[in-house]
Amino acid sequence: MKYKASIQIMPQAALLDPQGKAVTHGLQQMGYLNIDSVRVGKNITLEIEANSEDEAKSAVEESCKKLLANMIMETYSYSLTLL
Amino acid sequence: MKYKASIQIMPQAALLDPQGKAVTHGLQQMGYLNIDSVRVGKNITLEIEANSEDEAKSAVEESCKKLLANMIMETYSYSLTLL
Repeated sequence: MKYKASIQIMPQAALLDPQGKAVTHGLQQMGYLNIDSVRVGKNITLEIEANSEDEAKSAVEESCKKLLANMIMETYSYSLTLL
Repeated sequence: MKYKASIQIMPQAALLDPQGKAVTHGLQQMGYLNIDSVRVGKNITLEIEANSEDEAKSAVEESCKKLLANMIMETYSYSLTLL
């Protein structure tokens, strides 16, 4: 079965996010004074061939831990849908 | 009212995504031969003070079009939750 995974990788809450700070500042300069706490991370989608949802989940989690996310500075979350 | 927006910005489907190609290749080199079609985009979260959900939506859409996404090369989608 083929699954589509949508993975969100964000800087850890405890860490400063200079890119997010820059975007917050940019938006406020453009007049959006009601927007704050911008944080910028990555959104990764991928397709995965697996025999079960559990197998797909474990492959996604391993990929996140080994390659996609830097677990020292980032957290990840994901959702799977059957294609 | 305060809303939290989660915005996904992805390269347009018609465009090549060299970063995604590199990640696909990296994962396959690591033995994940069942993973393909990786695409890499941005995930942005922000907080927005607005009087109604419609007002929050229009601020998020304007921010995406004017600053966050490059509409020539990227598409965006978002969800709003009340904090």
